[in-house]
Amino acid sequence: MSRYWNKITSSLVPYIPGEQPKDKKYIKLNTNENPYPPSPKVLAAIKEITNDDLRLYPDPTCENFRNVVAEYHGLSRNQIFVGNGSDEILAFSFNAFFDTSKPILFPDITYSFYKVYAHLYGLQYELIPLDDQFNVPLDKFNSVNGGIIIPNPNAPTAKYIPADFFKTTLRNNMNQVVIIDEAYIDFGGESAIKLIDEFPNLLVVQTLSKSRSLAGLRVGVAMGNEELIEGLNRIKNSFNSYTLDRLGLAGAIAAYQDKEYFKQTTQKVIMTRENTIEKLKKLNFNVVESKANFVFISHRKVPAKIIFQDLREKGILVRYFEQPRIDNYLRVSIGTDDEMNSFIRVLSQIVD
Amino acid sequence: MSRYWNKITSSLVPYIPGEQPKDKKYIKLNTNENPYPPSPKVLAAIKEITNDDLRLYPDPTCENFRNVVAEYHGLSRNQIFVGNGSDEILAFSFNAFFDTSKPILFPDITYSFYKVYAHLYGLQYELIPLDDQFNVPLDKFNSVNGGIIIPNPNAPTAKYIPADFFKTTLRNNMNQVVIIDEAYIDFGGESAIKLIDEFPNLLVVQTLSKSRSLAGLRVGVAMGNEELIEGLNRIKNSFNSYTLDRLGLAGAIAAYQDKEYFKQTTQKVIMTRENTIEKLKKLNFNVVESKANFVFISHRKVPAKIIFQDLREKGILVRYFEQPRIDNYLRVSIGTDDEMNSFIRVLSQIVD
Repeated sequence: MSRYWNKITSSLVPYIPGEQPKDKKYIKLNTNENPYPPSPKVLAAIKEITNDDLRLYPDPTCENFRNVVAEYHGLSRNQIFVGNGSDEILAFSFNAFFDTSKPILFPDITYSFYKVYAHLYGLQYELIPLDDQFNVPLDKFNSVNGGIIIPNPNAPTAKYIPADFFKTTLRNNMNQVVIIDEAYIDFGGESAIKLIDEFPNLLVVQTLSKSRSLAGLRVGVAMGNEELIEGLNRIKNSFNSYTLDRLGLAGAIAAYQDKEYFKQTTQKVIMTRENTIEKLKKLNFNVVESKANFVFISHRKVPAKIIFQDLREKGILVRYFEQPRIDNYLRVSIGTDDEMNSFIRVLSQIVD
Repeated sequence: MSRYWNKITSSLVPYIPGEQPKDKKYIKLNTNENPYPPSPKVLAAIKEITNDDLRLYPDPTCENFRNVVAEYHGLSRNQIFVGNGSDEILAFSFNAFFDTSKPILFPDITYSFYKVYAHLYGLQYELIPLDDQFNVPLDKFNSVNGGIIIPNPNAPTAKYIPADFFKTTLRNNMNQVVIIDEAYIDFGGESAIKLIDEFPNLLVVQTLSKSRSLAGLRVGVAMGNEELIEGLNRIKNSFNSYTLDRLGLAGAIAAYQDKEYFKQTTQKVIMTRENTIEKLKKLNFNVVESKANFVFISHRKVPAKIIFQDLREKGILVRYFEQPRIDNYLRVSIGTDDEMNSFIRVLSQIVD
């Protein structure tokens, strides 16, 4: 605490990202990074634009990049907003759309940053409990609310809801914004982007950090009707005119343009995930059905916390959340085949 | 307006950055960019780190970069905060420190983003009028307030206050944070960084966009006592864990390390500024005393708006603010010697 912090600052409980330890080399299966590098075309595009023009401001409207995303998804440029990672876009969205006079709704087990945003922007929230199989009960998002956010697939459970299932929720909340956070949608799910023209209250948020292997570049995208995009621009232009730098913009454009590489690498992650799940089941793990680049697992006998600690000692990092309902689960990012073979080998010794 | 915008979003008056026209090639003297490219070592450092590791998140604590800045200024790492341009840092600072129950204070003629931040964070403000010579009257910053922000040199006037003059203001406001926005300090002014150990309420904010020729990379720095830095971290970690990407961090470190290049280029800008001022005076311009990389000028006969429009038609962009008290002034960024010679030549035809 400090006399120089105002009320908001003193009351915050900031988000804690997954650890990035520097003490030794780990197999890192704890922050859902993509095990494959970015497209070589992305690296080439960044190197090409690393020139004297860095002295000049970037395009504050990010027109070229928004054109590329629009064309990719069959939308118009005015339906696209881009930002410094999907986290920044989510923060802007909470700030722009959610109503402080009514609780906002999100699942009880979900991305832990949502609560943090709510505190930052003075929003009340009501947690909607997942059912026993960790399904998001969409029919329960029906109380009076100031906005809704649901990740699909959910994190850390990895469970996916078919896009069409959101229609009822969207229809029943036409006066509030419903955000679908699709950070992990490219690993086997279908995006809700196709519902944007039907539902002016739908904002779909995606990131280049996971499926496009660009966690180190900080680029995210939001898609929705033009009024929502204009709302996000009002907040952004009252905060920082240039949230994306020249290098990020160039890399992001190249990432969307290399469709073949994107298809190949996401497909490899999916294959590895399915192989890993099969092996985990043989080791007596419960594995939540996954359409993400991670799996959420629980062993029938050995407590998750023990496994987490043993893995860490043996040089493998996974994520453990010491929270009610999920404190016997581990979230494990999907690495390369080699990394997952090492993981399974070490794991089989631990649970044997 | 939209039914999906909340009260804040509907009431905002966003900042409008200087134009970046795409219709033709201009001599751009309108956004205070540095006419010299970034250090070749910056470009090399960025190219080197443009590799497969872009798939991994950056260090959320930016330790290496903060170490470099700390050493550069003789501070400790915990006195350093870094962000996505000084604009983001200013936004975080308004959010973290300023008290919504009392007006904050800043000059009536100053960086127009301050008002925008105040609206975004629900802050009242009291404008302290500059005197007739555009001096910031530090003795007038003495009313009950929720925080103070003063740019030094001021923008768009370019006028500088010797760092020691801030001592009284800092002493009289020990319970509020006083931000000194030093975006332009490296063009001849002395930083208030030397006052940090004496004044726990002082936050100094700088940017790499101007004196380090990196407007396109988006990096800013704040320096102050550890409690202030921790306050900024609380806000940042409730907003976006990774505001600086891997490339920005690498480029920023290299920029601080190449001290010789920094000295040469800032010195060149200062020399060109002094030559330009001399020529402007011969053309019957009033020139406000400048310690920035721009000059604020007014002609004895020809209205600023006319000059602005004529220059634009002839391919030279400067900045004109249609605001009370300064609507007969132009802000002109200092370009290369060649650019300023062209500017003076065209200008002399206009005011002849």
